[in-house]
Amino acid sequence: MEKLSFLTEDQVRVVRERFGSPVFVYDQNTLERRAREVLHFPNAFGLTARYAMKALPTAAIIKVLTDTGLHIDASSGFEAERALRAGVPPEKIQITAQQIPADFKELVEKGVLYNSCSLHQLQHYGEHFPGSKVTVRINPGLGSGHSNRTNVGGPSSSFGIWHEHLPQLYEIAARYHLTVTGMHTHIGSGSDPDVWVNVVKLSLGIAAKMPDVRTLSLGGGYKVARMNYEKDADLQVIGKKVVPEFEAFAREHGRKLHLEVEPGTYLAANCGAVVATIIDMVNTGAEGYKFLKVDSGMTEVLRPSLYGAQHPIVVVPQQAEPRGVEYYLVAGHCCESGDVLTPEPGNPEGLKTRMLTHARIGDALVIEGAGAYCSGMASKHYNSFPEGAEVLLTTTGELKLIRKRQSLDQVIENEIIA
Amino acid sequence: MEKLSFLTEDQVRVVRERFGSPVFVYDQNTLERRAREVLHFPNAFGLTARYAMKALPTAAIIKVLTDTGLHIDASSGFEAERALRAGVPPEKIQITAQQIPADFKELVEKGVLYNSCSLHQLQHYGEHFPGSKVTVRINPGLGSGHSNRTNVGGPSSSFGIWHEHLPQLYEIAARYHLTVTGMHTHIGSGSDPDVWVNVVKLSLGIAAKMPDVRTLSLGGGYKVARMNYEKDADLQVIGKKVVPEFEAFAREHGRKLHLEVEPGTYLAANCGAVVATIIDMVNTGAEGYKFLKVDSGMTEVLRPSLYGAQHPIVVVPQQAEPRGVEYYLVAGHCCESGDVLTPEPGNPEGLKTRMLTHARIGDALVIEGAGAYCSGMASKHYNSFPEGAEVLLTTTGELKLIRKRQSLDQVIENEIIA
Repeated sequence: MEKLSFLTEDQVRVVRERFGSPVFVYDQNTLERRAREVLHFPNAFGLTARYAMKALPTAAIIKVLTDTGLHIDASSGFEAERALRAGVPPEKIQITAQQIPADFKELVEKGVLYNSCSLHQLQHYGEHFPGSKVTVRINPGLGSGHSNRTNVGGPSSSFGIWHEHLPQLYEIAARYHLTVTGMHTHIGSGSDPDVWVNVVKLSLGIAAKMPDVRTLSLGGGYKVARMNYEKDADLQVIGKKVVPEFEAFAREHGRKLHLEVEPGTYLAANCGAVVATIIDMVNTGAEGYKFLKVDSGMTEVLRPSLYGAQHPIVVVPQQAEPRGVEYYLVAGHCCESGDVLTPEPGNPEGLKTRMLTHARIGDALVIEGAGAYCSGMASKHYNSFPEGAEVLLTTTGELKLIRKRQSLDQVIENEIIA
Repeated sequence: MEKLSFLTEDQVRVVRERFGSPVFVYDQNTLERRAREVLHFPNAFGLTARYAMKALPTAAIIKVLTDTGLHIDASSGFEAERALRAGVPPEKIQITAQQIPADFKELVEKGVLYNSCSLHQLQHYGEHFPGSKVTVRINPGLGSGHSNRTNVGGPSSSFGIWHEHLPQLYEIAARYHLTVTGMHTHIGSGSDPDVWVNVVKLSLGIAAKMPDVRTLSLGGGYKVARMNYEKDADLQVIGKKVVPEFEAFAREHGRKLHLEVEPGTYLAANCGAVVATIIDMVNTGAEGYKFLKVDSGMTEVLRPSLYGAQHPIVVVPQQAEPRGVEYYLVAGHCCESGDVLTPEPGNPEGLKTRMLTHARIGDALVIEGAGAYCSGMASKHYNSFPEGAEVLLTTTGELKLIRKRQSLDQVIENEIIA
């Protein structure tokens, strides 16, 4: 049976009483611990680690993570703006985006770094800032085959400049007198160190053909274990296997490449939980299922509906008391058949019961592993539910409101009837 | 090749120039035509048709549809509140929700109808309003098998009171002196009239055991063809097949049941389009794909990512001119591998190219069939993109702003750093 990770049962009760339900709670200790792990990623010739803020873009979280020494990876101009407003210096923010921001010029002039992800973006950069140093995202061609929309590398991915297009890349660079000093690949390689080594070899092979490259970013994609049967990527093991590759590259090409990494999930996933409330219990007869319904779901945690992701779930009784266990399916509060928190592992269309503490209506239900891609990527406002609140459990044990619960007035404030 | 449905190419250009990109455009003519079709659903003893507003809850759309005579199906207390603020009289709003609203009592006292979807909800109703008339949602037990999360009926669905629980239902009703006058089933039956007839027979069989029931709601789920190879449900054909069943029930049980229907998709789906902009074009070599990237995607239209839904896509050149065709994949602007608008039909994990007008960066790209479950159910604010604007094309051909584009300030206004 799954357990609470950083909250105690009493804290769950206090959180619900003080901040209402549903509410995200983030743990500063876990955030800082993960940040330290990332900042100690083994490297041969220096490291810059960026937090991929799309995972969880709340200002207070950005501040906690950048205070540890992390820089920022922004996936849009809007994210860069949020980071700036959270107090991050522009030179510690790098935009790696699919869409050129409307205020591209102002951002770059302020000192925000811009990583070109396509030939078009590079040309746009050259037009505005000829003669400058630039970095580029390359699609190294690796992926698990055609026609798979979950690849971030390979022929079925649109991210980055295709590795065969280096001639066009350098044609643009020459036209605008750009020096390509950095190369970025991100192909989301999971937890297997050997896969990471292969990715690094592939990336270094491309970097070898890019004579002015001094920085190589491997992006993110470090696997995080949310469920106890899953396995975390071990950054120490991966990093140590990667160091000799950078050293060999330096010997062969005379260039000591600075390493960059950009984790999002690795930093944020297990630092967050949604504290929700069991609002109903229904069953579909002796041959059917027992369901718990909560006042949350795809409005806060879309990952199970979107790709069958598994999140630990813990029932916390309203008052502390011994309880038995029971097998339940857990559904969200939307009138949507797909709003379920217990999809079948490996089969997003299926359902699979979980063994949970015997529940009663009014109990709390905690969705763990909800730090990354939950608040940041949910089906916000579906069924017109306003955004939940967000709370930070600080290193001193204080519960601090970092985002107020949204009102219905705010949800509809831009509407015009007449 | 797919075509624009209600906009002309010139209107697409005007929309983008006047309101920016991306922007939802809704067609009042189509909305009113679909509303008339629903209001003419054949029936034996009277009809109430409700718009399932979760499909598209923008106030101006609610007003257009309710002005035609439609009532409202609200899936949360928040939706009921939005409908009230849009000017809908309370007695024309019925809540059928998974979560009892915090202001349940106030809403019901105002005259909003409340359809109990579980034994717990019914008991809650009884506690607050003993001695009143109530309606209930029943899960009639029909579905395509266990373990399928896309069912809205059957043992794997948590929606409604399980059909075997009528004794418990009537025990609660007796305790609070409630009269159960209405019964609701919604199992999403698609386009096949024979399936609808079976659903109606099943529902009537349950209604036969509920002596005071005078109203039967069949819910929604009427299939809409977005793509030209799909088939619309024909309400006339379905309705005409259903009429004799209601007549037979009346002869046998002496009760003339009033019919209710609650379409959402049927009313809204093909009345809406997203006008977006092609912001980049990349390719992955001779053996790979050509990609169009747009300044929209799962932030406005999540359905392709969520369940592989197919939406027609049309490229509109910046200036009118003859162009050839090309096969493309279309990706959204999020740094997310799943943000694609061209999943493979029948295989959400796959990708499938579309034949589109030969495109250039800066052209408009229109995503059709984007009225229902797009603006209302998107991954809002992912990658920190603010909500797009919404525009109504009125019956007089006027383009009227009905929701202003959101600002970044609004996205982050509830955050607290210090």
